[in-house]
Amino acid sequence: MASFSPVIERHLFGPGPSNPYPEATAALALPLLGHLDPEFIKIMDETCESLRTVWGTGNARTLPLSATGSAGMEAAFVNTVGPGDVAVIAVNGLFGQRMCDVAGRCGAEVVAVEHEWGQPIDPQRVAEAHPSPKVIAAVHAETSTGVRSDIAALGNLKGEALMITDAVTSIGGIELRADDWGVDVGYAGTQKCLGVAPGLAPFTITDRAFERRIPKPQSWYLDLGLLGGYVGEGKSGGGRTYHHTAPVAMVASLHAGLRRVIDEGLDNVWARHQEAGQILQQGLQEMGLELFAAEGHRLPELTTVKVPDGVDSATVRKILLERHNLEIGGGAGQYASTVWRIGLMGHNARPDAALLVLAALKDALAIAG
Amino acid sequence: MASFSPVIERHLFGPGPSNPYPEATAALALPLLGHLDPEFIKIMDETCESLRTVWGTGNARTLPLSATGSAGMEAAFVNTVGPGDVAVIAVNGLFGQRMCDVAGRCGAEVVAVEHEWGQPIDPQRVAEAHPSPKVIAAVHAETSTGVRSDIAALGNLKGEALMITDAVTSIGGIELRADDWGVDVGYAGTQKCLGVAPGLAPFTITDRAFERRIPKPQSWYLDLGLLGGYVGEGKSGGGRTYHHTAPVAMVASLHAGLRRVIDEGLDNVWARHQEAGQILQQGLQEMGLELFAAEGHRLPELTTVKVPDGVDSATVRKILLERHNLEIGGGAGQYASTVWRIGLMGHNARPDAALLVLAALKDALAIAG
Repeated sequence: MASFSPVIERHLFGPGPSNPYPEATAALALPLLGHLDPEFIKIMDETCESLRTVWGTGNARTLPLSATGSAGMEAAFVNTVGPGDVAVIAVNGLFGQRMCDVAGRCGAEVVAVEHEWGQPIDPQRVAEAHPSPKVIAAVHAETSTGVRSDIAALGNLKGEALMITDAVTSIGGIELRADDWGVDVGYAGTQKCLGVAPGLAPFTITDRAFERRIPKPQSWYLDLGLLGGYVGEGKSGGGRTYHHTAPVAMVASLHAGLRRVIDEGLDNVWARHQEAGQILQQGLQEMGLELFAAEGHRLPELTTVKVPDGVDSATVRKILLERHNLEIGGGAGQYASTVWRIGLMGHNARPDAALLVLAALKDALAIAG
Repeated sequence: MASFSPVIERHLFGPGPSNPYPEATAALALPLLGHLDPEFIKIMDETCESLRTVWGTGNARTLPLSATGSAGMEAAFVNTVGPGDVAVIAVNGLFGQRMCDVAGRCGAEVVAVEHEWGQPIDPQRVAEAHPSPKVIAAVHAETSTGVRSDIAALGNLKGEALMITDAVTSIGGIELRADDWGVDVGYAGTQKCLGVAPGLAPFTITDRAFERRIPKPQSWYLDLGLLGGYVGEGKSGGGRTYHHTAPVAMVASLHAGLRRVIDEGLDNVWARHQEAGQILQQGLQEMGLELFAAEGHRLPELTTVKVPDGVDSATVRKILLERHNLEIGGGAGQYASTVWRIGLMGHNARPDAALLVLAALKDALAIAG
């Protein structure tokens, strides 16, 4: 009977989910509130307000969508592009590719601007790919390659286009300033640097983008015109209209995780990610391993490293999991077995976690070798 | 600081969410597993298997979608209807209406078959509404009115059409036999009779419907062709393809809630809902209150009762919430302030809960009166 199985505790050092902050885990198990309870509405309002802080935005329409980060991507496109609209999409990894698929399903004319995996996007090339796109889109932190791109530079060049930004792996981990950078529509996930279990998509949209939205999007569930009333459109205490039943336990958990991040101070949290990533990346290189992402554009929170010649990627990951209860990720796409992805995100962005993964990897390589 | 606020504990006797089974709550706070961890894949496989039991189906493609019940509705339509396809939809409440909206956004030609609210659907009339629909759809248990409709009878008359069934408020509470009744596509929620927090949509689809599906649906997130690989298509131990990050904490909670239901025995769980609902409905009538749903078609798990003349609905609900920490629901649509909805679902489907809500309502009516 599974009820009597030992509890399994993992170090989640892959590309996400990461181990949540203890406050976020504890909040999951609080007594459940109704989704229209005044006490829950307070929690939702505070959550939206905290999300504004981590997004770096004053957007009234900032809310946790009731699905995972990938649904956030879908919400970004279904609300902004329809048949015939041009979407210029920077592709430098798996999630840029996915954006093209999602935008295409909205009927958009997709202009994909391809980049080598492991390199950041070239804002100039993206901005010049089409004279008058309705949207331009890029991934801030590519989870598939561990690369950071310069969203501020793209924002400077966007012109009349609406800029869509994927911040799934950057939010709560590295500098993110949606308003200063010109982000019109942004989506993220909870399970990486925010240190909360997966299940919600933090989302933000400017008034400018909202006014130019698709009036009746093909998705009812992700229709921002309907969802505004669900969260009171950022007006604390404002009227609510029933849209769907909020995932109350997940929202309570996000509320607690965000409070932890904001209490620590966003700058301090970013510095903690920076330090942990630096220890890890330096340590890996000292072990003779080669990093995958281009130098100068490496994410501290998600490190990609090449699997050494003659080493079987899966064997090492299996040893780490079974001997050390420690998860790291394989590579994405064509790099599935030649790259590892190591995340030190949210609660795991700590020097001790960096030292542990270095020591465990050394051990596993010795055993596998 | 909210960290030092007293914990609020409510009796959730509205139309959902209900108070989860303690096992489901405890599972939320277990150490998080990675979404590709072999131990999590076991949990996912067992969850899909348990879902087959509560659906009454052998469908390989039975899984928890990573969003709330309303996204289950959207998944049902985006995968089965496209421009020009005819969708016959039985409407006897809010959720039938919503189906029309969702199907329309898929480009379907919607034939709505309207019924009076509070009455069950008329299967004959629905089946005769169009000679060759691609789908016919109906709500098994209308959350807006507390009415049960005869899905088996509609299944008998469906002909070549695919039958879509909304089981959000019936699953785990009353008899549901998807295979015996001819359900081709079914969706549900976790937060009502299954006794789990909101956030997932239990979903099932027959091979017949899967073969006739829209090859590339307008939604990437809800594309069943992609989601099959995500859960191994019902083949335990089968290959997994990464689609999106599963909401692991919610799936672990559903896993635990389903185990509780199945350990108790589905027949026993249905009988428990029946008994609690009977005590409540009899007690309400003994108090001189009038039930809203048509006699003979009343759901035991969700009771609708007319607000007595001269009583302010909101005042009574406020007294219940503030004095007794007890939530009941207002009415839906045009009945917002003239009907109450009282749910005894999942863990709350107990005689003591029925007696409590009767006593508390009597008290609140006396105070409000």
